[in-house]
Amino acid sequence: MLVTDLYEITMAGVYHRHAIVAPATFSLFVRRMPPGRGFLVAAGVDEALDRLLSWRVSREDAAWLTGQGIAPDLVEPLVDRPFDGDAWAVPEGSVVLADKPLLEITAALPQAQLVESTLLNAVTYPTAIASKAARCTLAARGRPVVDFSLRRDHGIEAAVAAARAGAIAGFAATSDVAAAQALGLRATGTMAHSYIQAVGDERAAFDMFAGTFPAFPTFLVDTFDTARAVRTAAEVIRAHGLEDVAAVRLDSGDLAGEARLARRLLDEAGLDRVRIVVSGGVDEVVIDDLVSAGAPVDVLAVGTRVGTAADQPYLDSAYKLVEYDGRGITKLSAGKGYAPGPKQVWRGAGGDVLARRDEGGPPSSRPLLEPAVRGGRRVRPPASIEEARDRLAADVAALPAGARAVRDPVPAVCRTSTALTRLQEEVRTALRGV
Amino acid sequence: MLVTDLYEITMAGVYHRHAIVAPATFSLFVRRMPPGRGFLVAAGVDEALDRLLSWRVSREDAAWLTGQGIAPDLVEPLVDRPFDGDAWAVPEGSVVLADKPLLEITAALPQAQLVESTLLNAVTYPTAIASKAARCTLAARGRPVVDFSLRRDHGIEAAVAAARAGAIAGFAATSDVAAAQALGLRATGTMAHSYIQAVGDERAAFDMFAGTFPAFPTFLVDTFDTARAVRTAAEVIRAHGLEDVAAVRLDSGDLAGEARLARRLLDEAGLDRVRIVVSGGVDEVVIDDLVSAGAPVDVLAVGTRVGTAADQPYLDSAYKLVEYDGRGITKLSAGKGYAPGPKQVWRGAGGDVLARRDEGGPPSSRPLLEPAVRGGRRVRPPASIEEARDRLAADVAALPAGARAVRDPVPAVCRTSTALTRLQEEVRTALRGV
Repeated sequence: MLVTDLYEITMAGVYHRHAIVAPATFSLFVRRMPPGRGFLVAAGVDEALDRLLSWRVSREDAAWLTGQGIAPDLVEPLVDRPFDGDAWAVPEGSVVLADKPLLEITAALPQAQLVESTLLNAVTYPTAIASKAARCTLAARGRPVVDFSLRRDHGIEAAVAAARAGAIAGFAATSDVAAAQALGLRATGTMAHSYIQAVGDERAAFDMFAGTFPAFPTFLVDTFDTARAVRTAAEVIRAHGLEDVAAVRLDSGDLAGEARLARRLLDEAGLDRVRIVVSGGVDEVVIDDLVSAGAPVDVLAVGTRVGTAADQPYLDSAYKLVEYDGRGITKLSAGKGYAPGPKQVWRGAGGDVLARRDEGGPPSSRPLLEPAVRGGRRVRPPASIEEARDRLAADVAALPAGARAVRDPVPAVCRTSTALTRLQEEVRTALRGV
Repeated sequence: MLVTDLYEITMAGVYHRHAIVAPATFSLFVRRMPPGRGFLVAAGVDEALDRLLSWRVSREDAAWLTGQGIAPDLVEPLVDRPFDGDAWAVPEGSVVLADKPLLEITAALPQAQLVESTLLNAVTYPTAIASKAARCTLAARGRPVVDFSLRRDHGIEAAVAAARAGAIAGFAATSDVAAAQALGLRATGTMAHSYIQAVGDERAAFDMFAGTFPAFPTFLVDTFDTARAVRTAAEVIRAHGLEDVAAVRLDSGDLAGEARLARRLLDEAGLDRVRIVVSGGVDEVVIDDLVSAGAPVDVLAVGTRVGTAADQPYLDSAYKLVEYDGRGITKLSAGKGYAPGPKQVWRGAGGDVLARRDEGGPPSSRPLLEPAVRGGRRVRPPASIEEARDRLAADVAALPAGARAVRDPVPAVCRTSTALTRLQEEVRTALRGV
């Protein structure tokens, strides 16, 4: 399977036929900060680099393309030509801002063009979901957040990506066994409403569960009547001696009110160490409401709204030609302009600075983009989830408070260096003359 | 990889330990019609049946689960036990309504429980996207619609699912080569802005493209100045004799105004057969605006907003226990109630009727749910995309006009049979006594 849009094949065909094969640099960035976000979290960057290095037109793909009416001599130069260019990339889990590159690819123009769609596809969704998941972690203020999104994510691959993005954002576990297996995460799970319905008797259902899973007994208490179920759970917890490990889970209704009720009943039963898990339509705004209101919630299970990034299910990501054959390139149109040339982002105490790649940064700032691929070989190993998580935690801690706010965040700002501003003006002036 | 939520494993463990293994029926349905939809399109149903029959706990999965602290005697009964129950399912591409089953599974309770998440994951996204794509086709009123969504879909798998949903909805082609290869669809592609920027001269870029792809020459005319680019394209089209096959593509700005401008310039150049393709933020509402305003658009390319179902990126899908050991099951809570027992949907001239599976339907109506799996064997082959597309077209044509409306659709309604209403009352009365 050739993951590309067909127009990349047609472009590469024209380029080869007319020897338009000088080095080109493309920059992958998110054009606008979406509403409700103060920062973005780069995720999928390592996956993009994997795809870059494994992307190939096979002999079978070539036959398929000629079957679609593309002349054989246009396809032939593409066959079995692995990527042999360079890539600079921010580390997985970095905080990034709008209009600043996450990834820059330099290669012969056809090669750099062919990977456009697969790189955008690799980065856009993971970055969207990690950016939302990071807000859940902030809203939870230290309480564990877990991922329950598998059932409504956009496929099995998307569910694994969502679990991974959650782990980078600091989530404690995922319900998705496949994702936990693939990524080495902790899996978590409780009890189904249908279990209680099938058994038909809440006490019997809780009792059997406690006997079967004494190590992680979480009792679902909203199937019939929450108050009655919490009292039943309390009796079962005491009968089985599970006072230190048990939890109750609320999955519907007024979560804050039900949590207060459950807490009061548990405390009255002397079960102040039994935790309360909430789920059902939970996202960073719901978490913020619960925590801000002082609702006694201990574990936040987020699902569909986070796994599909429901309020912003995509980012306005772009892969733009910024230099061809040594010539800086941009667009003039309002809202679609971008800085020309290979770039670097310098991060320091004064915020980020977008600069030309060939200039330095402000004192005591560090460059975000690193050489990741050189001459078709990976020179930076993929980050582990733990590395990405720790990097993100440090990056988030360094953000201004306004950017970290769950409600009405103020996006962090980034300055542009004098040299880059000058280059941009030169390129725009030249373009107006076209 | 074991695609399941961990709680399904824990549930199955309890069921086996306590011999709660009588036959259970679960019903998969969408709880509420999302805003802005008058009907839903069942998609992913055949994929769900594939997953049902291939789902298995391997020896390696079992070892992994015990490593997570689940006792070996709980996992052992699950190993290498292929699904041996039954499934009833609507045909792929059927119009379905809220609260009416797309799929019903009957098997020993643990087996039927274990596949919950993978079945929901298989059906939810394809149904969301096919439902939106079908609205694009309606809005386009006969004009070809093509899928350009790969770059921002939620992964490679999601992009293939989006292309497939589009094809079922009647889309003419996809830009995603991998999807076209996997599904036997027509691939389509035009020209990149970066191509024109790299060449630096629009006339040279158009001329080379026309010479290279005389069979499908679509010229991108919004890189610098649309009017100038259309005039240039017109000259190149005439020079190459492409009057009958060429098109111009608009990808930004006021699409209606630009399309009118392009049409006027093309007509003035005697090129009334050159078509106009529009793309860039196009969804069913944009299409409806363009077509309603009489904008001269010939081909509609939809991307991100459709591929991520951006206004409704998920459906409120559910997989609910409706019968256990011959006993009908429902929930009492407001908004979460559902009809108990195995069911059938009868479709006729008077609309749909939701009925018990063991009763008949109104005269000259036909049953939507068909036996698809019996005793773990598939008894209904998967539908081809063409079959699903033709079924959908017929189903949509039979809908009331209000349900087909792009603006403020009025969801089609479904009655409930007297026998099912009676059963529901009986089960609710029994439940109140619990």
